[in-house]
Amino acid sequence: MEISNGGIDNTGSIITIKGMLSLLMQSVDDEKNEKKVISLAMGDPTVHSCFHTTHVATEAVAEALLSEKFNGYAPTAGLPLTRRAIAEYLSRDLPYKLTPNDVFVTSGCTQAIDVAMALLSRPGANILLPRPGFPIYELSAAFRHIEVRHFDLLPDKGWEVDLDDIESLADQNTVALVIINPGNPCGNVYSYQHLQKLAETANKLKTLVIADEVYGHLVFGDKPFVPMGVFGSTVPILTLGSLSKRWIVPGWRLGWFVTTDPCGMFRKPKVLSPFSVSFRRTCAAVPSILQQPDEVFFKKTLNLLKQSVDICYNKIKEIPCISCPHKPEGSMAVMLKLNLSLLDDISDDIDFCFKLAKEESVIILPGTAVGLKNWLRVTFAVDPYSLEECLDRIKSFYQRHAKQLQRY
Amino acid sequence: MEISNGGIDNTGSIITIKGMLSLLMQSVDDEKNEKKVISLAMGDPTVHSCFHTTHVATEAVAEALLSEKFNGYAPTAGLPLTRRAIAEYLSRDLPYKLTPNDVFVTSGCTQAIDVAMALLSRPGANILLPRPGFPIYELSAAFRHIEVRHFDLLPDKGWEVDLDDIESLADQNTVALVIINPGNPCGNVYSYQHLQKLAETANKLKTLVIADEVYGHLVFGDKPFVPMGVFGSTVPILTLGSLSKRWIVPGWRLGWFVTTDPCGMFRKPKVLSPFSVSFRRTCAAVPSILQQPDEVFFKKTLNLLKQSVDICYNKIKEIPCISCPHKPEGSMAVMLKLNLSLLDDISDDIDFCFKLAKEESVIILPGTAVGLKNWLRVTFAVDPYSLEECLDRIKSFYQRHAKQLQRY
Repeated sequence: MEISNGGIDNTGSIITIKGMLSLLMQSVDDEKNEKKVISLAMGDPTVHSCFHTTHVATEAVAEALLSEKFNGYAPTAGLPLTRRAIAEYLSRDLPYKLTPNDVFVTSGCTQAIDVAMALLSRPGANILLPRPGFPIYELSAAFRHIEVRHFDLLPDKGWEVDLDDIESLADQNTVALVIINPGNPCGNVYSYQHLQKLAETANKLKTLVIADEVYGHLVFGDKPFVPMGVFGSTVPILTLGSLSKRWIVPGWRLGWFVTTDPCGMFRKPKVLSPFSVSFRRTCAAVPSILQQPDEVFFKKTLNLLKQSVDICYNKIKEIPCISCPHKPEGSMAVMLKLNLSLLDDISDDIDFCFKLAKEESVIILPGTAVGLKNWLRVTFAVDPYSLEECLDRIKSFYQRHAKQLQRY
Repeated sequence: MEISNGGIDNTGSIITIKGMLSLLMQSVDDEKNEKKVISLAMGDPTVHSCFHTTHVATEAVAEALLSEKFNGYAPTAGLPLTRRAIAEYLSRDLPYKLTPNDVFVTSGCTQAIDVAMALLSRPGANILLPRPGFPIYELSAAFRHIEVRHFDLLPDKGWEVDLDDIESLADQNTVALVIINPGNPCGNVYSYQHLQKLAETANKLKTLVIADEVYGHLVFGDKPFVPMGVFGSTVPILTLGSLSKRWIVPGWRLGWFVTTDPCGMFRKPKVLSPFSVSFRRTCAAVPSILQQPDEVFFKKTLNLLKQSVDICYNKIKEIPCISCPHKPEGSMAVMLKLNLSLLDDISDDIDFCFKLAKEESVIILPGTAVGLKNWLRVTFAVDPYSLEECLDRIKSFYQRHAKQLQRY
């Protein structure tokens, strides 16, 4: 299989994470080994019993459901009470107040991305996306005929954005710059200063910023989470988010698309109706969920993630062919660098992942799928036992495939 | 406002039902009259207390939710157990068995429409849509750059499809023929014989059929509901449906896109991922909902609809400027013909609806919004008291605007 950067193969098709995982799962050799399949690939912690949502959230939804008051169609942009609750939730971290009119309820963050792309689509438009990144952006841009231009994230600078790269890529047809913070797939968290520089650069280039904050508040390192909207007076920002990650309910499909734009520098989107697929039951529960922050639950989640990161970071030191340039400080994923020169019969990251799946029943995502060849993308939102087991298997895999010189 | 047939105005913009309703609501004159606003325009019966879902459905969803087993991402096409339940539910009325692989779970029937359009889109493609129809088809086709060609439904023949019209409109670029049965907005139900003729015509024209059965089983006249899939051996059929109408839960957004194609005449859709937005909680409850048909609830709903239709049909006889060419036998809407020659100062259906909203606080949809100028589209899934009150107000409105000759 030949796949070029950006998750787009050389026939022009786009490889989604799901598509790649499906191929990897198929290559697990059930006959040869009886090990249980463990995946460090999908960002869905709900498959591990240690990660589950707070009862505050499920009870709020059950209450809305059993009230039978919310079985009908919702307004296109979402229920007013939902929009208000999201505006208030996000405003807590901003130097200005958002209004319900700034908020559009979407079916998960994925639809928020698609709405953004649809709104920005126009002949000749291009968009600046991070490399490595989140392939749904590439997919959605392709559907909307928006040209994708990739800027690099710098592993040696904590995955900061290469600002020079952005300046050289942007032109008058650049419709947006996408910033994912906390970082997916790198697990980094941007400082106030770096976000400020990004806002100033976008302002200089006269392009808006799409701030993907789906992992908002999921930080467990030294840096606090700073929402991009803090710089809304410098540059107009579309903030995307959802309940999925912080509340560990990705299947609920409750996301938001928010104009964090205190100066009203860009006009309010007007054509949301064909995209917005609101879900009234969850929507109606949103105020209870957002207004009663279950701090004990949040803390428990962050502790679990921190513990997983520590396991991951330490275990990787025992595997010479893999290195982690930047210990994760947020989100649920990390990028690991593959040193092929230490391996005997592995041609690239894709070959590594397919052989690993076949021999060890371990599923991890080749970096190529997120735009970075000969890297690996690992999700650490996994129960500690499975994570250790997985990394031990990767170590065995390395030992079998290590070059002779390294073995002795 | 100038709006041409098919719900597309002469600037090329598409008028959605929601957009039109919003304009009508704005024109209600709160200062001049203190009447409560009543709408016979939106097909959402949940706003009337007499229409509510069965406890079987809400309890199934609450159970799935509180189990905390279904908070994660669902597979793109839906949970296997959900796909199986929908396949079994639809197979009960077919001469062959559908498999779970034939079923794709969508976010309501609206997304099923959008998935169908996305799959059929190709350069030069055209699609045959009924007039009057359901404007989401026009909207979705426009987004996918599919040319729309309208065929007429014949009011004097129980809103049957004009088969000659279809033959003259179709060419080698026609990708599909859309049949909505039970009919929206006409309230008609097609006979076995008429559906058979439609299947044979589509076969002759080598085009597939999109069978919109969102009102499936909601019939209360003499004709039974026959799913188009019965003719799946004659022509490949995409069947679209949802829980929304039969279970009175439009806000749950649980729909399906099904290949009712026993001969495998068209290849299975392969590119569903960017569209499919599954909702695991409801999905997980679907087997309980579909396998335990609450016949008492279904019967109660049909009795309510039949009672509403009778009120509507009889009351309309008292309003000379409005006539109903075909008493509804199914669905929740009916088309009424406007006789402008009996009115003094009303220029067309849009003028009628705006003046009615302003003077009587009654919202009904101008036929133009569904493709038929100088008709009216009325939803009768309304509580009997409101329906009578509404029709009395329309009668008063007529009396004030009737031509002098008619008055004396």
